[in-house]
Amino acid sequence: MNQIGENMPKNYVIIGGDAAGMSAASKIRRTDPDATIQVFEKGEHISYAACGMPYWISGVIEDGSKLEVLTPDVAREKRGIDVRIRHEVIKIDTARNCVVARNLETGEDFIEKFDALLIATGARAVVPPIPGVDAEGVFTLRSLADAQLIKKYISDHEINHATIIGGGHIGLEMAESFRHLNIDVAMVVRGDQIAPSMDKELLEKVTDNLISHGVDLQLGTKVNAIERIRTGLKVQTSAGEIKTDIMIVSTGVKPNSELAIEANIEVGKSGAILINKHMQTSVRNIYAGGDCAEHNHLVLGSSMWIPMAPSANKGGRVAGENMAGKNTKFPGILGTAVAKVFDYTIAQTGLTEKQARQIEDLGEIEATTITSGSRAHYYPGSTPLMVKLVVEKNTKRLLGAQMIGKSDVAKRLDILAVAITANMTVEDIGMLDLTYAPPFAPVYDPIHVAANVANK
Amino acid sequence: MNQIGENMPKNYVIIGGDAAGMSAASKIRRTDPDATIQVFEKGEHISYAACGMPYWISGVIEDGSKLEVLTPDVAREKRGIDVRIRHEVIKIDTARNCVVARNLETGEDFIEKFDALLIATGARAVVPPIPGVDAEGVFTLRSLADAQLIKKYISDHEINHATIIGGGHIGLEMAESFRHLNIDVAMVVRGDQIAPSMDKELLEKVTDNLISHGVDLQLGTKVNAIERIRTGLKVQTSAGEIKTDIMIVSTGVKPNSELAIEANIEVGKSGAILINKHMQTSVRNIYAGGDCAEHNHLVLGSSMWIPMAPSANKGGRVAGENMAGKNTKFPGILGTAVAKVFDYTIAQTGLTEKQARQIEDLGEIEATTITSGSRAHYYPGSTPLMVKLVVEKNTKRLLGAQMIGKSDVAKRLDILAVAITANMTVEDIGMLDLTYAPPFAPVYDPIHVAANVANK
Repeated sequence: MNQIGENMPKNYVIIGGDAAGMSAASKIRRTDPDATIQVFEKGEHISYAACGMPYWISGVIEDGSKLEVLTPDVAREKRGIDVRIRHEVIKIDTARNCVVARNLETGEDFIEKFDALLIATGARAVVPPIPGVDAEGVFTLRSLADAQLIKKYISDHEINHATIIGGGHIGLEMAESFRHLNIDVAMVVRGDQIAPSMDKELLEKVTDNLISHGVDLQLGTKVNAIERIRTGLKVQTSAGEIKTDIMIVSTGVKPNSELAIEANIEVGKSGAILINKHMQTSVRNIYAGGDCAEHNHLVLGSSMWIPMAPSANKGGRVAGENMAGKNTKFPGILGTAVAKVFDYTIAQTGLTEKQARQIEDLGEIEATTITSGSRAHYYPGSTPLMVKLVVEKNTKRLLGAQMIGKSDVAKRLDILAVAITANMTVEDIGMLDLTYAPPFAPVYDPIHVAANVANK
Repeated sequence: MNQIGENMPKNYVIIGGDAAGMSAASKIRRTDPDATIQVFEKGEHISYAACGMPYWISGVIEDGSKLEVLTPDVAREKRGIDVRIRHEVIKIDTARNCVVARNLETGEDFIEKFDALLIATGARAVVPPIPGVDAEGVFTLRSLADAQLIKKYISDHEINHATIIGGGHIGLEMAESFRHLNIDVAMVVRGDQIAPSMDKELLEKVTDNLISHGVDLQLGTKVNAIERIRTGLKVQTSAGEIKTDIMIVSTGVKPNSELAIEANIEVGKSGAILINKHMQTSVRNIYAGGDCAEHNHLVLGSSMWIPMAPSANKGGRVAGENMAGKNTKFPGILGTAVAKVFDYTIAQTGLTEKQARQIEDLGEIEATTITSGSRAHYYPGSTPLMVKLVVEKNTKRLLGAQMIGKSDVAKRLDILAVAITANMTVEDIGMLDLTYAPPFAPVYDPIHVAANVANK
């Protein structure tokens, strides 16, 4: 297949073999069948379903191999993608269009040229500098390797009590997983609320539900020290002492953008890599995608860092298409997110009230919260849904929405994600022609009710 | 409160006291607190939840009084709306701005003047001219009075077998209701499919499921005659004879627009009343809403008759606001609909492929059907969803969508209803930032999968 000159097969290099990297690689393969595609992955796994990990640890998902969407062997054999696991790229040379890669097994360094490069290095857990945080039995949960270590630790030890630091989605999902395994749970949160990406006042019932499921929630509490003791761990907090058998530190993540920064590729305020809608960095033939990059925020029209799986997957595909010569745009993100927290579902899209009020470019902000039934009130199984809309007062444009309830939340919230994407006002939303039948919704869906109240 | 001249309280007359009529009346009351509002309702009930009736007949909804959203007494006392049940308007005089109403109890006729009039006369069941269709034990299901008659008939007689003519939503819901009561069901359908508002090829599994739940489905079958026999009814069909105890005729509806036609108010091809976005008819101070009116179709930009509860409710409110001097628009409808059919949910919005191909104004039509899981494939409880998208080929604009599955269908379909309202292309839809977490959706929602396939 090798030809001379302009028709030489192109070399594509991808740093990072998870969602964005492998999405791009697969898209390049389909767009440019003759290309050479090399993926350097520092770890041992590529393209795994990170969001499924809490449910595999709890045993709700029995077969862990299902979390691996793609293995290196399959990628190599079925898709012709040259995946090199345990290979770390240690330098990007933008002048010479090459990277320096290190084989972590042999320690050997080598140079690989590229026509187009994708940086898809993801993000890593932030571990606060607590004395003893590196003790045996203290874990973060970010990679499949982390999940395997946790699962093994639980099966190798007698675990009666777990302590989680942080009350975000991963912390909450892990609390549920531990309780599912009949392990007592303490959750230590520095701030004054769980789910810090949401507006606090919505979370009362979810918090009560968490506690009623046996989670010892300690808000406004700081962990001062961790000590390995004979039978497990001793945790010193600002409120006292916790004896525990395992700890999960889930206090946030930061972008793996050091490699890009060293190569003088522009990053944003968050430290994540800046890209345009074509997923291009400040260097023409270098692209970035996934959790290491900022993305266009559809409400703000400016770049924000909200690392999540859906944008890594979609943005990776767009990057791959453009690297292979197409002209595709990734319009942007809303930070749409959902989590199951025991009996509740919590979901959000766009800006929270807290966020919106901090943004100077926006006009006056109004927020409306209603509670309305998920089904016709006379039909069995209707449950109350809380819907909060954040609206720009003078334009009546919807800027963000949050929804909480025991069922039928996630995809109902998506209705509002589309409405925000389409720049709809609350008047527009009140008039939407949505499905109605007693087993599924009232004639005025909670979304209509919220929009009509917000429109008054 | 009475004043002289221009400040005299206005007289509002509303013909029909169900969803559109009572929505308008309530909105007028809030907008114009001094107004006189008279509602003439031919029947005995106002504002009832017609869509709940099959579930009340089956006993799934135990308390029938919950179907009455508003009673005449409450409307009178709490909202100051002069509701007159058992009153039929027999003439609209557009020159003199008055109606002639008949008290059906006394037979007395009287004249009522109006400043603004709303025609909200609804639609009625079409009963085909089958010999014997007026026999005892043969019912239609359109009004709460119908439902009460059916419920009483079932409790007063030994009902072992029911026959339903027609395979639309009401027929399907009644089939489920009868089976819930352990009554054998024959469903006789003239056409070659159930759910005739949807594209046939999607319905295979739903049809199988219906049959597996014990419904004797007879497609392509005509009812020739019904005969009352000692123990029940004998039904002669083109395929043979059915002995049955009760019959429901659900073969369609037609608009109650005769009164408007006699008053020279314009009607559309369907025979339903033509209105503009302000809900005004061809006569300036006469409005129409609900099942007797055509509404703007958001895909076609022209008027269509799709009688459904949500547009009656919303359109009625808009009519009321405008009658009381405001300037509100009802943008239109998509024909969004959902029904529970035993284990399946069937839902649709916008145009079906069949419809789209018959509309000359549209460009070439493409249809895409995919099947994809409702949740992450590795998470328990994921069920296959069929999604069909109908797309205008040259613009890639979504014109319609249909979805079928065992759960999580209704509000997921609504995502596409919003996308159609916003004139989105399948490329736009493929990029939507939708909720993702293993218990609720895969990282590529079935909606993304369908849009991405349609975009190829």
